[in-house]
Amino acid sequence: MQALDTAFNALSDPTRRAILDRLMRGEARVTEIAEPFDMSLNAVSKHIRVLEEAGLVTRRREGKEHRIAFSPEPLDALARWITEKRALWNGRLDRLEALLSEEAKQ
Amino acid sequence: MQALDTAFNALSDPTRRAILDRLMRGEARVTEIAEPFDMSLNAVSKHIRVLEEAGLVTRRREGKEHRIAFSPEPLDALARWITEKRALWNGRLDRLEALLSEEAKQ
Repeated sequence: MQALDTAFNALSDPTRRAILDRLMRGEARVTEIAEPFDMSLNAVSKHIRVLEEAGLVTRRREGKEHRIAFSPEPLDALARWITEKRALWNGRLDRLEALLSEEAKQ
Repeated sequence: MQALDTAFNALSDPTRRAILDRLMRGEARVTEIAEPFDMSLNAVSKHIRVLEEAGLVTRRREGKEHRIAFSPEPLDALARWITEKRALWNGRLDRLEALLSEEAKQ
């Protein structure tokens, strides 16, 4: 699923995760977001664009300025995916355990 | 954190997620894993290596054969990360709501 691809990819970079941490404290301009990072404004803008394409941030134009805000929905989709896989796996382990205990009884 | 980088990156590809689905049904040889995919054995091996580096699969040598098995621990780490972020965000929304309702009262 394309949405999972872009969301997982967006989160695979520590700078992008740090940008999300910053935005969870409130929306910010691109220059404000860039400030703590030792990289060019252009590099930070690219990271923001990756987050935007994954739906993890939204962009609001205010005159010449872009205000970036955190958007939580993709995290919900990832959480659902991970929860489903862990449930599948744990269910399989439970069935295996039941089978082994059944065999032990015989 | 390096472990989050590699795990999120490993899961950002649909073939790699499909390989994990296959392995949740039980361990398998590389050739078995490759069978349903319309790609070279070499390409599938590379995907398996990415999963292995992320700790999402383990490799067991049996004579000339490699048996690949699913390993759930990295999913736990990702689930913890996502849960923590969602809790932070929801906590912030709750505080904002409390603040607004306090202001509305005054």
